[in-house]
Amino acid sequence: MGDPAVAGGDMPVRNAADEVSRIVEHAKELQETAASLISRTSEEEASLRRRVLELRSNIKMLRSFVDSSVKKGNLDPTNAGKMIEELSRVRYTLVEGDAAAFLPCKSHGRFLRMFLGPINVRANLKDVQLKVKEEYNNFRDSTTYLFIFFPLLLLSLRSWVWDGCFPALPVQLYQAWLLFLYTGLSFRENVLRINGSDIRPWWIYHHYCAMTMALISLTWEIEKAPNCAQKQKGIELFLKWAIMQGAAMLVQNRYQRKRLYTRIALGKARRMDVVWGETAGVEGQLWFLCPMLFMLQIFEAYVGVLLLKTAMDGVISEWQVVTCGILFIVMAVGNFANTVETLLLKCRFKAKMKKPRCNNIVSVVR
Amino acid sequence: MGDPAVAGGDMPVRNAADEVSRIVEHAKELQETAASLISRTSEEEASLRRRVLELRSNIKMLRSFVDSSVKKGNLDPTNAGKMIEELSRVRYTLVEGDAAAFLPCKSHGRFLRMFLGPINVRANLKDVQLKVKEEYNNFRDSTTYLFIFFPLLLLSLRSWVWDGCFPALPVQLYQAWLLFLYTGLSFRENVLRINGSDIRPWWIYHHYCAMTMALISLTWEIEKAPNCAQKQKGIELFLKWAIMQGAAMLVQNRYQRKRLYTRIALGKARRMDVVWGETAGVEGQLWFLCPMLFMLQIFEAYVGVLLLKTAMDGVISEWQVVTCGILFIVMAVGNFANTVETLLLKCRFKAKMKKPRCNNIVSVVR
Repeated sequence: MGDPAVAGGDMPVRNAADEVSRIVEHAKELQETAASLISRTSEEEASLRRRVLELRSNIKMLRSFVDSSVKKGNLDPTNAGKMIEELSRVRYTLVEGDAAAFLPCKSHGRFLRMFLGPINVRANLKDVQLKVKEEYNNFRDSTTYLFIFFPLLLLSLRSWVWDGCFPALPVQLYQAWLLFLYTGLSFRENVLRINGSDIRPWWIYHHYCAMTMALISLTWEIEKAPNCAQKQKGIELFLKWAIMQGAAMLVQNRYQRKRLYTRIALGKARRMDVVWGETAGVEGQLWFLCPMLFMLQIFEAYVGVLLLKTAMDGVISEWQVVTCGILFIVMAVGNFANTVETLLLKCRFKAKMKKPRCNNIVSVVR
Repeated sequence: MGDPAVAGGDMPVRNAADEVSRIVEHAKELQETAASLISRTSEEEASLRRRVLELRSNIKMLRSFVDSSVKKGNLDPTNAGKMIEELSRVRYTLVEGDAAAFLPCKSHGRFLRMFLGPINVRANLKDVQLKVKEEYNNFRDSTTYLFIFFPLLLLSLRSWVWDGCFPALPVQLYQAWLLFLYTGLSFRENVLRINGSDIRPWWIYHHYCAMTMALISLTWEIEKAPNCAQKQKGIELFLKWAIMQGAAMLVQNRYQRKRLYTRIALGKARRMDVVWGETAGVEGQLWFLCPMLFMLQIFEAYVGVLLLKTAMDGVISEWQVVTCGILFIVMAVGNFANTVETLLLKCRFKAKMKKPRCNNIVSVVR
C-alpha cells in the first residue's frame, strides 16, 4: 500500500469521494435554505395579507361613517368629498399597487377548475399580469380581423365559385375555428378575472353561449343541392351577422382602447380592466356607438327568431336549429340588458358626482 | 367658533380627517413593505436558483468523471457504484425536495400558450403540485368509468330501443363529451409536465390526436335508415373499441397506481410522475398487461384500416372517415412504438444494473 503507483491510482478515488461528500453536504444545505425561504416567505406574505385586509375593512368602515355623518349633517359635504376622494385614492393604491398581490385570490370558477384542475393562475408580479392583459388584447385584435375575413371569404366563394351552395368542409372549418376562438377567449377572460380585471361576468357567460353554439353548429348537417339556397339560409344569416359583429368589434376595440388609456391615466380605470364589455367607456361617443350596438343586438335577435321560424315551418327541423335560435335570442337579450345597465349606471354616477376629481391619482400609485 | 355645540359638530370631522391621514400613512407603509418583500424574495430566489443550477451541473460533471475513471481502470467499480448511488440520491433530493421550486420552469408549450396566454401554471409549493396530481388521478378514474359506460349504453339502446339504428343526438352528445374529456386531459397533462411530472410527450400528443378525432367525428353525418346498419359500421366499431380501451385503462389504473406507490417508496419514481403512459411500471405483470396492450393496439389499427376500407369501397365516402381512419392508425403505431421503447429501456436498465439499491432514499428527502 506504500507503493506510490498504487497510492497514485487511489488518488482520484479519494478525491472523488471527498467531492461526493462535499456535494452531499452542499445539497443538504441548499435544501434547508430552500425550505426556510419558502416557509419564511409564506409567513411574511400571510402577515402582509392580514394587514392589507384590515386596512381595506378600515377604509370601508370610515367611508360609511363619513357618508352617514354627511346625512346627519355632522360633516360638511365639501370636506366629506375630499375625504372620500382621499380614501378612494388609498383603495386604488391597495388594489393596483404591489400590495394587491397579497389580497386573497378570487375563486377560480367552475370553468377553469373543470379544464385545468386546482392549479393557481394568478400572477403575483404586476408586470406579468399586465403582460397577460396585453396579450389578451393582441389576441382579440388579431382574431377580430379573421372574424370579418372568414365569413366574407365564405360568402364571396359561394357566389363566385360554389354556385350558390356552401360545401360542408369550409363551413365546418370556420365553425371549428369559432369554437377555438370562443374557448380561448373564455379561458383568457377567466384568467384576467383572477388577476384583478373588472370584466363583467356577462361577457364571460356570453362567450360560453357562443362556445356552445359553435359546438352545436358543428353537428349541423350542411344541406346539399337542390334546394340548398333555402336550407342554407341559417348559415348565410349567421355569416352576415358575423361580419356586422366583427366590424362593430373593430370600431369598438380601437375607440375603447384609447378611452381606457385615458381612463387609466385619470385613475378612473385600473390597468387590468378590459374593454370587451361593449359599453365600457362609451361616454362621449354614445351617439355613434349606442345605435350601432342596439342595431347589432336587434339583428342578433332577428337571426334567432328567423332560425326558430325555419324550424316551425319545417324547412329545417333539426334540434340544432332550434337550440341555436334560442341561444341567439338569449345572447341578444343579455347584451341589451347589459348595455342598458351600464348606461344607467353611467347616468346615475354622473348625477351623483357632477365633477369627479380624480386627476393625479396615478402619481400616488407609482 | 368657540361655541361648544359647533365644536362638538366639528369633532367627527377632525376625528375622521385624522383617521383618513392615518389610513393614508398606513397604506403607504404597506405598499412599501409589499414592494420590498417582493423584490427581496425575488432576489433570494434568484440567488438560490443559481446555486441549485450550479450544484446540478457539478453532480453531472462528477458523475461523468467517475464513469470515465471506471472505464480507465482508475476507480474500483464497487466504490464507483456507491458514489453513483449517492449522487443519484442527491439529484433526487434536488428534484423532489423544496429546492426543486427554484429550478427554472419548463417551457409552457404551444397548447397552453394558445388557450391561456402567457400565464404561469407552475405551483411553487410541493403540496399544491401533489394536489394537482391527485386531482388528475381522480379525474382519470372517474372518467374511465364513463368511458366504458357511455358506449355500452349506446350499443344496448341501439339493440333494445332504437331498432338497430343510432339516432344522431345521443351519439353527438357522446362525441362532445369525448372532446371535453380529451381537452381536459391535454390541459391537465400539460400542467403536470410544467410541475415536474415525467409524463411521456407521446401521451400528450396522443390526446391531441384523440381531441382532433372527437372534433371531426362531431361533423360526421349520422346516416339514417334504410341501410344504416352498414353505414353506421364505423360508429359501432369505434364504440366497441372504446369499451375495450376503457376496460384496459381500468385494469392499468388500478395496477399501475399501486406500482407507482411502491416505486415512489423505493425512490425509483418521483411523486409527480404519472401512470398514464400505458407501460410505466408494468414490470412483474408483463405477462398480463403486455398482451392486453398489444391486442388493443392491433384492434385500434384494425378499426383504422376498416374505416379506410369503407371509404375506398364508397360505402361512406366523406373526408371525416378517411381522416379518422388515418388518426386511428397513427395512434396505434405511436402507442405500439412507445410500449416497445419502454420495454426495451426496461431490459437495458435491468441488464446494466443487476440489483439496483435505492432503498431508503425517501428518508433522505424527508
